[in-house]
Parts: sequence; C-alpha cells; structure tokens
Amino acid sequence: MASGVLSQPVLDQLFRQARTHAYWQDRPVEDATLREVYDLTKMAPTSVNCNPLRILFLRTREAKEKLVPALKEGNRRKVEEAPVTAILAYDRRFHDHLPELFSHVDARAWFVGDEPYREETAFRNGSLQGGYFILAARALGLDVGPLSGFDNDMVDGLFFAERYPNYRSNFLCNLGYGDADRLRPRGPRLGFEQVCTLL
Amino acid sequence: MASGVLSQPVLDQLFRQARTHAYWQDRPVEDATLREVYDLTKMAPTSVNCNPLRILFLRTREAKEKLVPALKEGNRRKVEEAPVTAILAYDRRFHDHLPELFSHVDARAWFVGDEPYREETAFRNGSLQGGYFILAARALGLDVGPLSGFDNDMVDGLFFAERYPNYRSNFLCNLGYGDADRLRPRGPRLGFEQVCTLL
Repeated sequence: MASGVLSQPVLDQLFRQARTHAYWQDRPVEDATLREVYDLTKMAPTSVNCNPLRILFLRTREAKEKLVPALKEGNRRKVEEAPVTAILAYDRRFHDHLPELFSHVDARAWFVGDEPYREETAFRNGSLQGGYFILAARALGLDVGPLSGFDNDMVDGLFFAERYPNYRSNFLCNLGYGDADRLRPRGPRLGFEQVCTLL
Repeated sequence: MASGVLSQPVLDQLFRQARTHAYWQDRPVEDATLREVYDLTKMAPTSVNCNPLRILFLRTREAKEKLVPALKEGNRRKVEEAPVTAILAYDRRFHDHLPELFSHVDARAWFVGDEPYREETAFRNGSLQGGYFILAARALGLDVGPLSGFDNDMVDGLFFAERYPNYRSNFLCNLGYGDADRLRPRGPRLGFEQVCTLL
C-alpha cells in the first residue's frame, strides 16, 4: 500500500524540523485531538498485535499537581505549563486481550506463566507505540516534549496502584503548540556510518 | 514548528492503510533509500539525545542465511524473501557518545556504574527509535514487516559478539515494496476507552 515518498514539508513536520518543546503557546489541546492521536497510534504494528500501550492524559491543574512531586526538579515547570501531559504506560496483562486481538491462534498461552517474557514484550512494544504516538501527534499539528526524568515507581503508586495495578509507567509526553521562539539549538545526531552497517 | 494536520492520504500511508507485509514485489530497495530511512529516524527525539539505536541491514543471500537459524520457523520464508531485513539493536554503551550528543552537562556520568539504568534507557529509547524507523520507512514509500519471533541471544552471538559486544538485538524489520494482494484481513485494535483515560 506504499504510495511513494511523502513531500519535503511533510517530512520536515514529522522529522526534520520538528523539535522537542519546553515552552508553549497559550492555545489549548482539544479532547477530540487527543482521540485522533490515539486513533492513529493504534493502527501501527505491534508484535502479535499485542497493543500494550495505555495512556493517562492529564489536562487539569489538579491532575498535574498530583504528578509534580514525582518529577525531577528541572521537569516540573515543563509539566505545569504544558496544555496536556500524557503518562505513557504499558499493561503487563496485555495478553488477556490476545484472544480478541490475535484470534487465529492461542497467543495468550505463550505469555501465561512467563513474566520476564511478558515484561520484555510489553516494554518493547509499549515503547514502539510511544514512538508512533509522538509522530501521530506531530502529524496532527501538535508539538511534543517527551520526558523520562521522573520516579516511575512513584508515578505507578500515585496513578495506577489502585485502579490499574498491572500498568507500569514508561515515559511522559507533554503536548501542545510549542513556542518556537524559545527553542534551544538542536543537538547533533549520530551519522549513518556510526549507527548502520550494510551487509 | 507544527504547521497543521497532515492530509488524509498522508495519514493513510503512515498509519491507517499501511499494513505489515509478509510477501514482496520483485523490486529492490536501494542503499540510498536505507540511508534516507536512517536520516529521518535519527531526527526524532530520544532521552538526553542518547540515540541508542544501531542497525544492521542484511541485503545479501549470505547475510540472510546467517540469520535464518535464529528465526522461528514461521518467520524464515519472510526473511528469505524480503529484499532487506534490518536487525534493530541498541548499544549498551550509548553513554560514551553523550559528551558529543548532549554536551552542556556531564550526562555520561549519570549512567556510568548503573547498568540497570543503562539497559532500561537503551531498551526504551532504542524501541522508540524502532517506532520512528517503521514510520520513516513508510514515509519514504517502503512497506515493513517487523518480527520479534527469533532468538535474541543467538542473533547477538552471530552478528554482534565479535565486532559489537555491547549491542543487543531488539527486533527485526523486513523492508521492501509489499505485495498487497497477499495481505490477510487486519486485526482489530483496542479502542480509545479501553486504553486512554482523560484526567
């Protein structure tokens, strides 16, 4: 179904000109847009269609304030000021959905009783889906500011322990419309020869 | 730098109509295209700009045959027939590049002597970059067929132990131009209400 190379402005918006934002325009993110971000994210592939990603969208001051004590100090202002902060997590019991998601074999059985394999599969595929989420947000005109500097155990305790004991926080992602005037210079990247080998 | 919602055909090509392929057109993938895939992938964000992704592109029959014994039986034909199979790995010594990639603080020091933190950071961000890689390939008109059904330790032994002892295989991704006539029906996805909570 590939239909050709996307245009340069599209590649710029998704990859080349897009930046990680820490300052935001005074412009809200509609709930409908958050739904659209998920509805794109969910379509991209995961192993055995396992879909382990789970998302908490924090929109209110109250929800954000609950998160703040778990953040490294340098990330607090970023979360407080972002229109929305998403907690991206993965579900360690993702395999309970496999009879519905991957119905032609008993894929659930592969994971029952093998916790390390479940954890690895959930972490890998939940992170893959995190990558899709970031690019889906950009595809819908949003800017993102992903963050790893926080206490995962504390976030799990605050947000998941009671209602979703099988969820594990992965990373955070601020969402909004960025203030491009406050961007810092972009960091360098590793080149093709440093990362890739052709065999 | 967000500039608006991308067009419906673009969203279809990246997310909604794109499929995981197991059969391929007889059409090669140029090395220049593989470089372009990486040059897009590398621009998307990673924590402290750590860029842990490493890629081996297997193009020759010889390289593919080395991989085949490590694959689950159901994946062997898929790899043999794909124009290119990428081994996506992550570098457990990614932090040695941080003085270059994140030069304004001594980020390398955060990771020295904390192997579990290094492993978690490399796996999370290498997988995130795997998600970027899949969508970068689709953005360039390629189709993908990601695979997790293989023996990671065996792949590490065959491809990395000698030259890249710090690399750990993550997942495989076949690349080419897919044969749409041989696609099976798409699996269902979890809905917004099953995955997302608005707070």
